[in-house]
Amino acid sequence: MGITLKDVAAKLNLSVTTVSLVLNGKATHLPKTTRDRVKRVAEEMNYRPNQLAVGLITKKTKTLGLLIPDIQNDFFAALAKGVEEEARHNGWTIILCNTADDHEREMDYIDLLASKRVDGILYCMSINTDIQRFQKIHAHLTSYNLPYMMLDRFYQTDGVQTALLDHFQGGYLATKHLLSLGHRAIACVTGPKHSEDSKDRLNGYRKALAEHGLSYDPSFIIEGDYHIESGIKAIDQLEEKAFTAVFAFNDLMAFGVCHALMERQLHIPEDISVIGYDDIFFSKMFEVPLTTISQPVVPLGRAATKELIDHFEEDRPLESVKVYPPTLIVRRSTAKHKEDRPLSSSMH
Amino acid sequence: MGITLKDVAAKLNLSVTTVSLVLNGKATHLPKTTRDRVKRVAEEMNYRPNQLAVGLITKKTKTLGLLIPDIQNDFFAALAKGVEEEARHNGWTIILCNTADDHEREMDYIDLLASKRVDGILYCMSINTDIQRFQKIHAHLTSYNLPYMMLDRFYQTDGVQTALLDHFQGGYLATKHLLSLGHRAIACVTGPKHSEDSKDRLNGYRKALAEHGLSYDPSFIIEGDYHIESGIKAIDQLEEKAFTAVFAFNDLMAFGVCHALMERQLHIPEDISVIGYDDIFFSKMFEVPLTTISQPVVPLGRAATKELIDHFEEDRPLESVKVYPPTLIVRRSTAKHKEDRPLSSSMH
Repeated sequence: MGITLKDVAAKLNLSVTTVSLVLNGKATHLPKTTRDRVKRVAEEMNYRPNQLAVGLITKKTKTLGLLIPDIQNDFFAALAKGVEEEARHNGWTIILCNTADDHEREMDYIDLLASKRVDGILYCMSINTDIQRFQKIHAHLTSYNLPYMMLDRFYQTDGVQTALLDHFQGGYLATKHLLSLGHRAIACVTGPKHSEDSKDRLNGYRKALAEHGLSYDPSFIIEGDYHIESGIKAIDQLEEKAFTAVFAFNDLMAFGVCHALMERQLHIPEDISVIGYDDIFFSKMFEVPLTTISQPVVPLGRAATKELIDHFEEDRPLESVKVYPPTLIVRRSTAKHKEDRPLSSSMH
Repeated sequence: MGITLKDVAAKLNLSVTTVSLVLNGKATHLPKTTRDRVKRVAEEMNYRPNQLAVGLITKKTKTLGLLIPDIQNDFFAALAKGVEEEARHNGWTIILCNTADDHEREMDYIDLLASKRVDGILYCMSINTDIQRFQKIHAHLTSYNLPYMMLDRFYQTDGVQTALLDHFQGGYLATKHLLSLGHRAIACVTGPKHSEDSKDRLNGYRKALAEHGLSYDPSFIIEGDYHIESGIKAIDQLEEKAFTAVFAFNDLMAFGVCHALMERQLHIPEDISVIGYDDIFFSKMFEVPLTTISQPVVPLGRAATKELIDHFEEDRPLESVKVYPPTLIVRRSTAKHKEDRPLSSSMH
């Protein structure tokens, strides 16, 4: 537990009260030589005020709990990095809570965080937390009087603050890019149908099509699950379709799509353009470096943390953080639709 | 800060002392109906003992600090996951400290963790912490009376406990695998020369060669920096060498090696075998799925955390955790050496 006031007092042969008064600048009645000696010895002994005691008095621990589904997933690791950076920058600390996408762990962790008296919570929902379970979580956090901010995943609820990425804009951007290259038959490999991010990306796709006066054809939309294999399977399902481009809702499925197309001796982007989503580390190292949508995950984590900290430190009402726009990263997996340009025989 | 004893007492119209005695099972002088009522109301109000107050009395916070260089790097994310799992399992919490490979941040974080009265620290050194800086860190932690355990990276120091991976065994295993396939001219792309893990892997390589009665040829050893580009450059430097296999000291450099070989129209593993190290997520998805060495990083994180927790909870001396052995993952990038192939032409 480190050096205490008591240790410093014992070394100085003074009372704890005297030492405490000196270190808090309230012992002006004592000679300066004594005060200087107390300060010097405290410093030599590497004494730090006990933040537990400070926390009991101020009712603030300057600590936030971070609930995330999987720290090994790059998306959540980036989120954690942003959160940690901002907290450190403000002298706050983060308790890391990996929920392994399990609702029960979320509930357990909230109890633990409450007993540790964290000031607030940054909450990225586990995948199996449905609306009913979320309402339980919300009630639990409210009963503890714990302010919280939802990261990326959320259910629309009154009085709940969110920090969100703009998946609609991302879907729109990706589709516009393909349309601008002359593609008109664009297949989609989506995420799970019920997921908000997948729904939003699909709505962005539909909006872009509508702007080009193109009708929406549900037979071009294949449901995936964000794993590579579903990208491969999607190409099987699209076998009979005359698409010239694929928009995969994440880079892993895009990788599966590329793999399945190359197995059919199709060239990317000469025969088929492919765009992904996420800009994971490996996207630039794909056989054909992947055009994709990059999400500002670290800034999102930082902004959400800042908002919570300001809420406590400046006693401001907690507000939702602005929705962060994604950006288009053009690499080599997308090219002009064949009919619009001379054929190229080169992959490079 | 949640519901306090005071809140519960107010609701019950009883004194804080009475409520505290009841909840701590020390109010046997009170009628059972009163005691039951106190317990029921405390539960209804979702009261949790304040761990700050408990910590002040017991001098234990059941909290550990985790100092790691980069939470977005899969290796450290796996380490954090193991640490968090074990802590949660024991009802402990982890304060996440991302040092961004910066020695100054390590020092700052140690001050912050000391003031938060963490019980101990799990410390994975930043890359720019040399032996002098490490000695400063060690002195700092000692002055705070903070027990700590070093994860993976370390300097041999008396009284310092470590949890280490067996890089020597990994280097040995990788080389034995290539030797068992008949390869005799095995090039190495190492990590930075001064790094302990790279030195250990190279020693493992040398031991395997020696066991086969092969002499060590320094011209087959190229220093890399664990990034892809150094794998590519290594092949340029090896241009004149008649090697039939490459042992890259991590998967990223192996990826660079494969890339550079394929650009030279060489086939993997038909012309050249390649083995990596780490078994990162993407290794199985390389164009030619990579044979590699898998490190038990999550178990290492768990074991180190368990050791620290047991030290505090069972008042046992802190001891180093056994060195965790790596395993060989055979995929498709390694194959039998073809005796009929002229060695000297393998690169041209």
